[in-house]
Amino acid sequence: MIYFDNSATTRPCDEVIKVLNEDLTGDRWGNPGSLHKLGITASGAYDKALGTCASVLSCDPGELILTSCGTESANTAISGFMHANPRAGKTIISTHTEHKCTLETLASLEKQGFTVKYVSVGKDGKPDLEMLKSMLDKDTGLLCFTHVNNETGAILPLDQIRELRKTLAPSAALYLDCVQSLGKLPIDLKKMGVDMASFSAHKIHGIKGVGLLYIRKGIRVSPLIIGGGQQNGMRSGTQSLPLADVMAASLTEASKHREDAYIEVSGINQYLKEELIKRGAVINSPDDALPFVLNVAFKNFQSETMLHCLEMYDIYISTVSACSSKSKKPSYVLESMGINRKVSSNSVRLSFSRYNTMDEAESFIKAIDEIYKFYEVNVR
Amino acid sequence: MIYFDNSATTRPCDEVIKVLNEDLTGDRWGNPGSLHKLGITASGAYDKALGTCASVLSCDPGELILTSCGTESANTAISGFMHANPRAGKTIISTHTEHKCTLETLASLEKQGFTVKYVSVGKDGKPDLEMLKSMLDKDTGLLCFTHVNNETGAILPLDQIRELRKTLAPSAALYLDCVQSLGKLPIDLKKMGVDMASFSAHKIHGIKGVGLLYIRKGIRVSPLIIGGGQQNGMRSGTQSLPLADVMAASLTEASKHREDAYIEVSGINQYLKEELIKRGAVINSPDDALPFVLNVAFKNFQSETMLHCLEMYDIYISTVSACSSKSKKPSYVLESMGINRKVSSNSVRLSFSRYNTMDEAESFIKAIDEIYKFYEVNVR
Repeated sequence: MIYFDNSATTRPCDEVIKVLNEDLTGDRWGNPGSLHKLGITASGAYDKALGTCASVLSCDPGELILTSCGTESANTAISGFMHANPRAGKTIISTHTEHKCTLETLASLEKQGFTVKYVSVGKDGKPDLEMLKSMLDKDTGLLCFTHVNNETGAILPLDQIRELRKTLAPSAALYLDCVQSLGKLPIDLKKMGVDMASFSAHKIHGIKGVGLLYIRKGIRVSPLIIGGGQQNGMRSGTQSLPLADVMAASLTEASKHREDAYIEVSGINQYLKEELIKRGAVINSPDDALPFVLNVAFKNFQSETMLHCLEMYDIYISTVSACSSKSKKPSYVLESMGINRKVSSNSVRLSFSRYNTMDEAESFIKAIDEIYKFYEVNVR
Repeated sequence: MIYFDNSATTRPCDEVIKVLNEDLTGDRWGNPGSLHKLGITASGAYDKALGTCASVLSCDPGELILTSCGTESANTAISGFMHANPRAGKTIISTHTEHKCTLETLASLEKQGFTVKYVSVGKDGKPDLEMLKSMLDKDTGLLCFTHVNNETGAILPLDQIRELRKTLAPSAALYLDCVQSLGKLPIDLKKMGVDMASFSAHKIHGIKGVGLLYIRKGIRVSPLIIGGGQQNGMRSGTQSLPLADVMAASLTEASKHREDAYIEVSGINQYLKEELIKRGAVINSPDDALPFVLNVAFKNFQSETMLHCLEMYDIYISTVSACSSKSKKPSYVLESMGINRKVSSNSVRLSFSRYNTMDEAESFIKAIDEIYKFYEVNVR
């Protein structure tokens, strides 16, 4: 099997499975809220897991909230910030290429009376900084951007955006969706200067059902889920040690292998790009995109046809984001980048992880050649 | 170890650990949203898990939403119903003995302009039906009750409440917190006639991080977490097959052993009650409470002292709900039942599961005798 769909989800790594089993079979299954030894053991292990996450991400453990997924993190950050800061500006600035969990939250806030302004995105997948400059003012309450786009790998010019904010809207908060950059780009929350950021475990060889939300100390956010007051009241619900440990283990492993993986995946990406261009494919990912994502249009092949052809070779890729794949619409991300509908409808996303190898990339190209050969009549 | 704190959380059962491992190591780790074979395999298995849950609970799989916990389920049901039905009555009726996730959600809705009326609760832990009768009218939008109270085991007179609603407020919806009744009382959602109900896996030997929300067909609820539109738009975020399977496996096992467990636990409860009364303890749980919970006040022993004394014997119990235990306040549930502060501050909760045995109950009484003996001076 060749799995080139790591932006959709990833295979759980051994370390994650190991710690999960230890938590379920050992003496750590107590309720972290319980006063007795079983509770204290669970609570201590939970704090340790959160401490590990904080250390890998360079923040304070008190700045992290364990959530059920990246989507919950995004909902909490964006809605929660706007509701907790009635005196902040009422305008949010974002782009049309955000993940659905951001776009839907923004649409919901618009219905509630907030204003959302969308910066255009260029062919390079980056927000138009001149346009952003013209939008930023003292009514700007929040900026919502994605660190690495999940469909193209486009990297946000974070430093420049932070500089613009500093000059033109210093009181605006900055939320960053880091779901796709985690484990791939260096994440140092102290240095990055963002106010809120979201993360997910299942994109970095963890499991589905756990994510993180970073809220910088001093930033007020209303909790989305209320009740017993767990996690300093920011996220009620019995804390799950196994899921906290999954997050910590997947983060630790991703961090440990990040640099090596970057080099290996860069080679794979470069090789595939060159070979695919030779075969007439169009690369949609910007030249300076993160190498872990390669968005490419195969000439005369509808996205879904190519996906299923490759499936015959036990090769797995995706058309658009898995969250949007069943709608069968062409990618709104590519559309926002100004890529025409014809190219867009032929586009697929290859996405890599530290488990991919150059051998797999070569097998992929061989499969493409066979598919082209088989469908010869159509391609020429 | 004797674990009598099963209302706080339970040890994961073997079947849960087994299915979790199969999901993580097999070929079912794909994203259920993906179009390729890995996605279809995951999606099929996910639907099967949800189907199992629906079959055990006697409802339609389309009426179930997989959530991250009981707290998320309660938040979604209560807030989501009030927001999705602007033409429904603006008054919610509930009690002061609900779980914090309900009480906090109600408090939040009050701030948003809704009216919440609290029915008094008697010494039997049941809402005062005469008072309820006087409150029900055409402005009643929602009734929020708990099937089994987590601190006392008090069982809600559901049939009578449903009858009152039918006569006096037929358009009001009925939400039921079933977190503590699940696996202990028969749950047949079709027959029970409730509109929404919440459940949690970790109270029935599953793991922390997964729950269910039942929304009867035809009942409108606004989703709490929005984004990619998973689960028919009712709960966005990548669906987690391992957690769905944990829910299904824990439900299946709980259902399979329910009747036997009820008999065994009834014996344990009866024995403990009798022996403890002989030793001067006061039973706070109503006579007709669910036998899985036994709330008892030990004469001259502060709750926390008794908890830690028992801990020395490797016996685990709790003071109040684990969600509230760290606040060190006396139980608001007992207070609402009119139990005086002195008794309340000496009260602990023993809570049982199918893994408890009569031998454990006997060892528990022996430990109590030794503790009484050791502290003789204080007790007499």
